[in-house]
Amino acid sequence: MVKLNKDYTKLDEDYLFFEIEKRAAFFVKKSLCNLGIGDITLAIPEVITEAICSATKELQEEKTLRGYGPSQGYLFLREAIQKNEYINIPITEDEIFVQNGIKNAISSLQDLFCKTSYVAVCDPTYPVYVDSNVMAGRENIEYLPCLEENGFLPTLPQKNVDLIYICSPNNPTGVAFTRKDLKKWVDFAKKQNALIFFDGAYEAFITSDDVPHSIYEIPGADEVAIEFRSFSKSAGFTGLRCSYLVLPKKLKTEDGFSIHKFYKRHIDTKYGGTSYPIQRGAERCFTEDGKKALERNLNIYRSGAKMLREGLISLDYKVFGGTHSPYIWCKTKNEMSSWDFFDLLLKKAQIIAIPGSGFGRCGEGFIRFSAFANQKTIETALNNLEKVTL
Amino acid sequence: MVKLNKDYTKLDEDYLFFEIEKRAAFFVKKSLCNLGIGDITLAIPEVITEAICSATKELQEEKTLRGYGPSQGYLFLREAIQKNEYINIPITEDEIFVQNGIKNAISSLQDLFCKTSYVAVCDPTYPVYVDSNVMAGRENIEYLPCLEENGFLPTLPQKNVDLIYICSPNNPTGVAFTRKDLKKWVDFAKKQNALIFFDGAYEAFITSDDVPHSIYEIPGADEVAIEFRSFSKSAGFTGLRCSYLVLPKKLKTEDGFSIHKFYKRHIDTKYGGTSYPIQRGAERCFTEDGKKALERNLNIYRSGAKMLREGLISLDYKVFGGTHSPYIWCKTKNEMSSWDFFDLLLKKAQIIAIPGSGFGRCGEGFIRFSAFANQKTIETALNNLEKVTL
Repeated sequence: MVKLNKDYTKLDEDYLFFEIEKRAAFFVKKSLCNLGIGDITLAIPEVITEAICSATKELQEEKTLRGYGPSQGYLFLREAIQKNEYINIPITEDEIFVQNGIKNAISSLQDLFCKTSYVAVCDPTYPVYVDSNVMAGRENIEYLPCLEENGFLPTLPQKNVDLIYICSPNNPTGVAFTRKDLKKWVDFAKKQNALIFFDGAYEAFITSDDVPHSIYEIPGADEVAIEFRSFSKSAGFTGLRCSYLVLPKKLKTEDGFSIHKFYKRHIDTKYGGTSYPIQRGAERCFTEDGKKALERNLNIYRSGAKMLREGLISLDYKVFGGTHSPYIWCKTKNEMSSWDFFDLLLKKAQIIAIPGSGFGRCGEGFIRFSAFANQKTIETALNNLEKVTL
Repeated sequence: MVKLNKDYTKLDEDYLFFEIEKRAAFFVKKSLCNLGIGDITLAIPEVITEAICSATKELQEEKTLRGYGPSQGYLFLREAIQKNEYINIPITEDEIFVQNGIKNAISSLQDLFCKTSYVAVCDPTYPVYVDSNVMAGRENIEYLPCLEENGFLPTLPQKNVDLIYICSPNNPTGVAFTRKDLKKWVDFAKKQNALIFFDGAYEAFITSDDVPHSIYEIPGADEVAIEFRSFSKSAGFTGLRCSYLVLPKKLKTEDGFSIHKFYKRHIDTKYGGTSYPIQRGAERCFTEDGKKALERNLNIYRSGAKMLREGLISLDYKVFGGTHSPYIWCKTKNEMSSWDFFDLLLKKAQIIAIPGSGFGRCGEGFIRFSAFANQKTIETALNNLEKVTL
């Protein structure tokens, strides 16, 4: 009989967010303040749902029917992305790949590279980066500590590395790389001949000119970086599923292979494309009315993050992030562990948050709050928290 | 710099269907009779598009908004599948996993198993089975010849094998396994402790009671088989994207691991779920009005397959399949090679078909016609073909 790929046994039993669901399952869900998983809570603007319905109705007529779409995504969407997100940046529509979500894309892309590659990830980090590399049998993983003393920004790796995962604005810490910070990493990758996986899932939350939205704003990044973007957080597509990645044609492996070419081969074999009506919904995000509607929602989330951040500070918590990000990284009090603080929040304040240690060892002593919640939930959470004595 | 995963260099340059697109690109597309890639051509029934639009509109209201869905798919759809497709078969909703397409599911599932596993595939076969195993570094691939003399049904492997890919009704040959044929394989898998990947993408085309729709109709198959199904061909979802797989909890690896448990871990890490409105569209396929509408479309495709099959026979071609399948497997005349016949059909008869040799060595000398075309296209194709002198 077939044997298991033993690399799978090296994973934790459960994916982090399911462990949290399990623990929360003992409470009445409706009375809990969910500041846990980063899922959207504001309705999707009508301008977007209309675009999806209108595209769906095209399929009920033979003359406008569409079957299999291009595995790379429809040109209309790739052009809209290029024209709106990569103005004055040397990225062409042919370097954009539309997909079903960053999780799927970023966890599969590593398959293209040699199994003995050295990988650098931040600690704490989004668990998918590490888990997908463990599943692929990679053992050479360098964890880059992101600590209070370095402002939660990683320091450059000590060893030679081949693949570097960077997420900015960061999940879970909410901290964003400035242009200067990011340039240091692009220069390092060039010098080291390393490839950066740049996860920009939260770029819509950036509020300062000093923080780049795209890694390609840094000169030369198109020789060393692949960028991931999503409609999940910017447009509420967590349940609709649409994302994209940017893979410049200039990218070559050390052994001289075009990464673009092999990635195309990879998706042609392993990927059936993204739902057509959903791609039309994503396209609508770039029209004037689409942009306005999304901006209204983003502003509500931003206000929520501000309220949560300031509320926590007024309760004497030390907090980070929450400015360019929907996430607030909060230090526990009295050196309480992340999971103890999680249990306390759940039992005494009816709050779900995500224990920092779930994102890596260096996350111990912290908890992640998500501001994807309505104002009332955040207010209730802060009121409940005020009553908790530590 | 990161090096390429060298297993990728063992693949053909282009995925088969893109090579065909390239060759067809020199012709005016509108005047070609496309009997090539198996893509639907009939409009999607309104009852389905309505379900998708109605679910989409739920998302524009906060009280009916849904964000991230369960990675395994919504219970409403898994229950509908179980109640309609697995009546009197010991499969529970918890053993069903909703996904974006069989291609993605079947190409990823092999990741769960040991890299040195022995794989058996039919020759000819759907290229994704082989390519995904090559990408994973598997070198022990046994090709099972499916030839005219064995009715295009594979004979049992000579060596010990761990993973067996079976597609019935078959792509590309259009031939279906009877209950007796399939039982032989289930028994073999049991004896050998092998795991069967059973691709049932075309089960909706089965017209005889003698041909099982599900491998689990064979007693004991739930100990040795994973089944893949899709809404692509049965309901026209090629552009909408929805499929599912059935993974019984009884399945264990030789080393005693629960495949269900590790697959759940796999998708939790690597998969963000299927679009909610599309899952509602799929659910609607199982209502009375949904079933009727789909049956109408299927009957049109079936008539097309019959017309094409009979037309080819009347032109003295030797054909197989086309009864339980939208595909007709046609022998070339005068021992012409598959690609020569492809070029001839393209240049002299304005027909696109798929060269049999593209599906494997044993496909040489054959061509695959798809009956996913309207009646007029099939008529024109047959008329054009009649004029071709060989």
